[in-house]
Amino acid sequence: MTGALAIAGLGPGAEDLVTPEVAEALAEATDVVGYFPYVARVPERPGLTRHASDNRVELDRARLALDLAAKGGRVVVVSSGDPGVFAMASAVFEALEAAPEFAAVPIRVLPGITAMLAAAARAGAPLGHDFCAINLSDNLKPWALIERRLRAAAEADFAIALYNPRSAARPEGFARALGLLRETCGPERLVTFARAVTTPEERIETVTLGEAAPEMADMRTVVLVGNSATRRVGPHVYSPRRAS
Amino acid sequence: MTGALAIAGLGPGAEDLVTPEVAEALAEATDVVGYFPYVARVPERPGLTRHASDNRVELDRARLALDLAAKGGRVVVVSSGDPGVFAMASAVFEALEAAPEFAAVPIRVLPGITAMLAAAARAGAPLGHDFCAINLSDNLKPWALIERRLRAAAEADFAIALYNPRSAARPEGFARALGLLRETCGPERLVTFARAVTTPEERIETVTLGEAAPEMADMRTVVLVGNSATRRVGPHVYSPRRAS
Repeated sequence: MTGALAIAGLGPGAEDLVTPEVAEALAEATDVVGYFPYVARVPERPGLTRHASDNRVELDRARLALDLAAKGGRVVVVSSGDPGVFAMASAVFEALEAAPEFAAVPIRVLPGITAMLAAAARAGAPLGHDFCAINLSDNLKPWALIERRLRAAAEADFAIALYNPRSAARPEGFARALGLLRETCGPERLVTFARAVTTPEERIETVTLGEAAPEMADMRTVVLVGNSATRRVGPHVYSPRRAS
Repeated sequence: MTGALAIAGLGPGAEDLVTPEVAEALAEATDVVGYFPYVARVPERPGLTRHASDNRVELDRARLALDLAAKGGRVVVVSSGDPGVFAMASAVFEALEAAPEFAAVPIRVLPGITAMLAAAARAGAPLGHDFCAINLSDNLKPWALIERRLRAAAEADFAIALYNPRSAARPEGFARALGLLRETCGPERLVTFARAVTTPEERIETVTLGEAAPEMADMRTVVLVGNSATRRVGPHVYSPRRAS
């Protein structure tokens, strides 16, 4: 008997940002698989087994989920935000490609509110014009490629959302990114630091690139860099619909 | 008495992708304001006035919403998808900037599932690595800027989501965009056409850039162009987490 696998996004943190589609998948699941703080967001109940694992074991976790589904489980892999944005969906498809024995497992991806859009909503509408999303983690790509993309995005006047800006293991990358952006966009460009958005620890702060410091971000922060027209109106920050 | 204004995203179409936060705001609203097909998604009920308007009158609509809120209404401006992505949030802040008499109106933006993420979820995970979102409508920006951003995004090997690819009024732009992408990315690059995603009219099709034709898109389509590593596994399309 083959079960099914759903890869679901829990949104940025607030329970009222979990879609009904995801809530229903969780209510019907036999197994929930994910990084432990996300699995902890799914309450225990009879008939549900929670499989929590540490960070950086995404492929092992994906293979476990495929295996449980192949054995008949109704399995939900949980990600924060949206599973297709720097999260578990790609890892599951990588695991599937490496393990053709799971080809018959039905897989659905259930979208969620990704961090940059929750952060943008709290700030106003800084991503209201063309924008890019860049993962600053260099675990899986060379730093030179990150710099190339940052420069291309800034030179073409995209607004930019930066995921995973800074970790204890590599504090210097984000400082270099800020330097590159300051050089390309000038010191007056607005930048929003959104930490732990929609959770009790939420902190949203908008400054200029000239005022921005690497210490303003950690791994729970998403950073939104405006385009050349991004401006303030009262407490809000937004990018106009017209190009500047 | 001052009311309040919420700018809410209804998601791409399916009711089970409307967040509880947005559902609650709609349940408490005295006025719903928006483009008529989106307003039509909010059922009539006693105590609710629905203000539907045509496309391309975003600033008038935003001003009406601010005015209703300033007079004490609990007003919800509705957008499809996410209100901060090529939708009403920027228009409301533009209207606010032009009308300081509304500065005291409390404004909240309530995020939603934007079309590109719903489309990516249906296809697999084609936006699983760094990506850009570009609005191909040249109503509010010169076509030369669109081409510059397309080229910058393609040359830096971003995946790309194209919103508003094609309208009857300007069918030639999307053909030019496809030509530019084919030239920059080569004919083998995967591209997903996602029409009316999560509605009964949904149609998802992935082809190569060599096979892509302008007629495959209309204004209800979002187009997802893969990066150089985007590939198929079974029926799914995904971008690996590692750079190619």
